[in-house]
Amino acid sequence: MSGDARIRPVILSGGAGTRLWPLSRLGRPKPFLALAGEQSLLRQTADRAAHWGRPLVVTGADQAEAVAAELREALLVVEPCPRGTAAAIALAALAADPDELLLVMPSDHRIADAAAFRAAVARGAPAAAAGRLVAFGIVPDRPETGYGWIARSEPPLGEGVYPVARFTEKPGRAEAEALLAAGGHYWNAGLFLFRAGDGLAALDRHHPEIAAAARAAAADPAAFAAAPALSWDRAVMERTQAAAVVPVEMGWSDLGSWEALHALGPHDSAGNVVSGEAAAVDSRGCLVRSDGPAVVALGVDDLVIVATERAVLVVPRGQSQRVSEAIDALEARRQK
Amino acid sequence: MSGDARIRPVILSGGAGTRLWPLSRLGRPKPFLALAGEQSLLRQTADRAAHWGRPLVVTGADQAEAVAAELREALLVVEPCPRGTAAAIALAALAADPDELLLVMPSDHRIADAAAFRAAVARGAPAAAAGRLVAFGIVPDRPETGYGWIARSEPPLGEGVYPVARFTEKPGRAEAEALLAAGGHYWNAGLFLFRAGDGLAALDRHHPEIAAAARAAAADPAAFAAAPALSWDRAVMERTQAAAVVPVEMGWSDLGSWEALHALGPHDSAGNVVSGEAAAVDSRGCLVRSDGPAVVALGVDDLVIVATERAVLVVPRGQSQRVSEAIDALEARRQK
Repeated sequence: MSGDARIRPVILSGGAGTRLWPLSRLGRPKPFLALAGEQSLLRQTADRAAHWGRPLVVTGADQAEAVAAELREALLVVEPCPRGTAAAIALAALAADPDELLLVMPSDHRIADAAAFRAAVARGAPAAAAGRLVAFGIVPDRPETGYGWIARSEPPLGEGVYPVARFTEKPGRAEAEALLAAGGHYWNAGLFLFRAGDGLAALDRHHPEIAAAARAAAADPAAFAAAPALSWDRAVMERTQAAAVVPVEMGWSDLGSWEALHALGPHDSAGNVVSGEAAAVDSRGCLVRSDGPAVVALGVDDLVIVATERAVLVVPRGQSQRVSEAIDALEARRQK
Repeated sequence: MSGDARIRPVILSGGAGTRLWPLSRLGRPKPFLALAGEQSLLRQTADRAAHWGRPLVVTGADQAEAVAAELREALLVVEPCPRGTAAAIALAALAADPDELLLVMPSDHRIADAAAFRAAVARGAPAAAAGRLVAFGIVPDRPETGYGWIARSEPPLGEGVYPVARFTEKPGRAEAEALLAAGGHYWNAGLFLFRAGDGLAALDRHHPEIAAAARAAAADPAAFAAAPALSWDRAVMERTQAAAVVPVEMGWSDLGSWEALHALGPHDSAGNVVSGEAAAVDSRGCLVRSDGPAVVALGVDDLVIVATERAVLVVPRGQSQRVSEAIDALEARRQK
């Protein structure tokens, strides 16, 4: 094997996600939103992927039409039902040539520096071609408790490629601070590179029922439902001895919360991030966004205010992860 | 003259008003809103007025059709152009019989206790029939700086009817506290009772150009524009020697701000006032109102959050009088 193996981009575009409610919702999930820039996140992801060729896009039946309309170049792999990223990646691996390197990427993240991403993929490719399951690890700049962390081991496998010592699921605050201070620990961004055949073999070893369900789905879509819903991280990366990590700094954000979008900016002189038909008057540190009615924040600090034609959310900036409580409250109200 | 003189209700329904933006706006002024109860404020005012007979409703050309649709019983007096309440009342006085007692009332206030209002009118009627220009004065329960105040004099002219010592325009905080503590001072609610002929005579004496413009408007509507835009309070009540005041407690509110609407309730156990498709979760002391998209306040305190299909306002409760800044901000944004 060599680093010249062909790379096949695999874009995962499933899942609903409510963390950006009311902007994201069942009929308009996050990949279809233009959260950072003019284009949808899915379109931006496909543009990055185009460097390596036509992408395989794994998506649900409910989103297939929208994905096809947005990405005319995509090869669609439709999940019979949602069963997590392990089963989704298995479907992609079965659709690819076993010797292709699958470059797996979520469809709803931001990568500001695409050249840095390409360089990291180039660093990881020889290890992947040699049988490693490579994860790209984001160099952390804060003690984030919302992500999984990857600890590297020594010695390096090549320039900028390390064995994985262990995966740490979402740590507590103190642990996250220790990981950040120690160095050699990276955020797991759900970006992977491995030979399709190696990925399937690892899944066969650690969760054969997932691989079996994905294979059976070709003849009988209903058989896919037998796969347990697990992430690729949990099902494979945390268990395999072949894991490697390529650290990368590339202006990455998972845009996973209103807090993350506020951090991204652009900020006005009072630290507000304002977009759509909206204004922040005598206000500081607010995210004010409208895709519907005109919104004015007047004399308020550190609030997230997001409006669509259907719904408006007002929540303190540090508490935007509580958005599910807002959805529950409206649901309860409607059932009265 | 006697207290049996016929009373003619006069409802003033002009003006746009932005203090309840975004709920009120040019095309949907405050009298047409159902702010306290199921009916519009105009409809509620007309229902109170019905006790005395068919009302004269003075309104602008732009609102005449809407008023006619809402109040089929009304006799409409259409202002050629807006010129303040002095000119509007002059038009009504000219349309009435000189011996009728005009009971002038704004169309956008709340009066919870209609019986108390009727009793106050009955107390004031003999004085009005005898030539007094009677103002109904709200017994104050707070040192309100947003209203004009009326000081009574002694001895009474009859039971519960006093001469007016003076009018005080919107006082400062210290002065308002002194007026409240002193007693014998009442809020000017814009509610008046006087003989039509006496009102016109007083206007002829103190502002003859207004009376003249109103008379000329019958033949030439354009002549009305010559009237200076003054309130009845300023033009007549503050100048006449014939002013009297009838103190009254009747659950009055001018609903003049979001603060006033919050005070009115009904409050939930955390002091929130929630109406429309809206919810307050883990929030205290908020006004959350929607006539458009579903609104959720989550983890916030003492905010006014008001949404329509067109606009959303978020402002701290004590600052809702700053609403014009919000309108200006949107206007500036649209002109960019």
